[in-house]
Amino acid sequence: MRVYNFSAGPATLPEEVLQQAQSELLDFENSGMSIMEMSHRGKEYSAIHNETIENIKKLLAIPEGYSVLFMTGGASSQFALIPMNLLGEGEVADYTNSGTWAAKAIKEAKALGQVHIAADCGKEIPTRVPSLEELDLTDNAAYLHITSNETISGAQWKVFPEHETLIADMSSDILSRPLDVSKFGLIYAGAQKNLGPAGVTLVIMKDELAERCPESVPTIMRYKTFIENNSLFNTAPTFPIYMLCLVTRWLLAQGGLEVVEKKNREKAAKLYAAIDQSDFYKGTALPEFRSDMNVTFRLANHELEPLFIEEAAKQQLKGLKGHRSVGGIRASIYNAFPAEGVDALISFMKEFEATHG
Amino acid sequence: MRVYNFSAGPATLPEEVLQQAQSELLDFENSGMSIMEMSHRGKEYSAIHNETIENIKKLLAIPEGYSVLFMTGGASSQFALIPMNLLGEGEVADYTNSGTWAAKAIKEAKALGQVHIAADCGKEIPTRVPSLEELDLTDNAAYLHITSNETISGAQWKVFPEHETLIADMSSDILSRPLDVSKFGLIYAGAQKNLGPAGVTLVIMKDELAERCPESVPTIMRYKTFIENNSLFNTAPTFPIYMLCLVTRWLLAQGGLEVVEKKNREKAAKLYAAIDQSDFYKGTALPEFRSDMNVTFRLANHELEPLFIEEAAKQQLKGLKGHRSVGGIRASIYNAFPAEGVDALISFMKEFEATHG
Repeated sequence: MRVYNFSAGPATLPEEVLQQAQSELLDFENSGMSIMEMSHRGKEYSAIHNETIENIKKLLAIPEGYSVLFMTGGASSQFALIPMNLLGEGEVADYTNSGTWAAKAIKEAKALGQVHIAADCGKEIPTRVPSLEELDLTDNAAYLHITSNETISGAQWKVFPEHETLIADMSSDILSRPLDVSKFGLIYAGAQKNLGPAGVTLVIMKDELAERCPESVPTIMRYKTFIENNSLFNTAPTFPIYMLCLVTRWLLAQGGLEVVEKKNREKAAKLYAAIDQSDFYKGTALPEFRSDMNVTFRLANHELEPLFIEEAAKQQLKGLKGHRSVGGIRASIYNAFPAEGVDALISFMKEFEATHG
Repeated sequence: MRVYNFSAGPATLPEEVLQQAQSELLDFENSGMSIMEMSHRGKEYSAIHNETIENIKKLLAIPEGYSVLFMTGGASSQFALIPMNLLGEGEVADYTNSGTWAAKAIKEAKALGQVHIAADCGKEIPTRVPSLEELDLTDNAAYLHITSNETISGAQWKVFPEHETLIADMSSDILSRPLDVSKFGLIYAGAQKNLGPAGVTLVIMKDELAERCPESVPTIMRYKTFIENNSLFNTAPTFPIYMLCLVTRWLLAQGGLEVVEKKNREKAAKLYAAIDQSDFYKGTALPEFRSDMNVTFRLANHELEPLFIEEAAKQQLKGLKGHRSVGGIRASIYNAFPAEGVDALISFMKEFEATHG
């Protein structure tokens, strides 16, 4: 029996996607091989690779002049690769500090170049991300870096700042809502939350930015290498990309990102309403910054939280424990998380409150 | 129906391993989740992660003071990470040039530091790797780098040089034979040939070497980060590591690497004997350097090679085309490649010779 998996990442995948992967795991399209046994330059895998790129372009209506890249090493690698490739000598990069993940990006950038903190709500973590009004931008900054959704705190940018070169870590909300990609220079996301399994990092970037990279950067660490080789300079993580392909097909079959966003908003709104209906539960993030992906809350009586998590698990509601750095409860309800699972959690919350409230 | 898959990588996997992955793809050990949907810090995945490390330690009898690491980005990333971490200012690293892969490692190292070519059989590619006698080593070199098996040419080091800090790219022959790990400083291998699917890079290194890394190297690019965090500083590529776990169990069940090596030698010897039995076929590598993993040969009449590959494919013998840089035929017969597949290829070769010889 499948459970409801609220894990923050790696996270739940659409059951249909897993079923398809299972059915063809030993024999992909009558080839007599698993997709993971195939050459990354062969015709079967190439078709998957290129379809995944096309599907992502379609889902996000990505304009000309941008590339969709498959890299590895997760967001943590991008934290270093971005300044290595895009922050020149004597230049300044603007970063916003909105929580744990933004802080990690800032730490790596500071070790590699000059960083200005354009907004810092570090003291108010985990309640919010910066507002547009408080941004203090550097003239001619190489780029402005934001973290579109803080997975740990459950706070999300609802409107994005305008910048000549806007860079966003979207690891936990990529493909959860439509996006005007033309407003961004570079978007990156580890796959393991909203895209597929761990092992592939999606990068969407304006091609011309890749030209900034200094000669001293190793070949495999240049975005340009990935652009010029269609992410096949060396062996790509073929199975994770195949899973991503199946997920993008599933998203297209849902009706695209407008439909997906509507479903996500409904799931999140229901859950926040359940949190707000009594003083027994208390939402962590301020209402205007509440994430549609990671719903964080506390029990008024913190001491009841371990019991809440334990009892929920008994009812097949798994992975609700908040990140160790902030505690509390976190329900990650990414694209693939079913609405019925949200309903089940809400029923459980009412039950638990009735017993312990 | 499964075919015989001679691909050089990604490559064939043990059928039993694929079957097990398939059977538990939607529900790993009654957890109600796929292994790829689970937190990389949860107890189920942790058990897999740590078992994989232990299995590799057991298979190779890895001594104390070494770590088994799971990284990403393939050998191509290691080409840069090794000099970044281990080649200090003013130091020299010795590299041997044995073919395409060694040359790529050399190119990246040269861009990052001082490199001495200790042996170069570049002109004799694809026939051999350097012999121990021709090595011209630098005194106090930071390390000596070799490529234990050249996947493209099909030439393999049979005896390893001695060096204070020996580093080997073993992407295409790791775990194919027993190894005295204590003679090496660092061993690395992309998983997609002999270990599992693409998406994880195995590194085995002497811990003390990691201390050499300069402060300027980004966190995620330091071996030390992986050692200190048991390869869980950030989200590991959990599904590829899970597949690697199943492969290591399969290797242990075979009876360990002595048994595996014996089987590999037998498969390769049979195939080389078939090549040598007439002038119709001609082995590419010199006999003393012949790889047990990638058997490369030509047809005396090169013009028949496309037909050979086409006819073989019709008999479910797939992936025999040599690398585009050298042409000819390449049969990659890694650990997981079944002996019956080698027999089938030999039968086909005889048949083809009878018809076209």
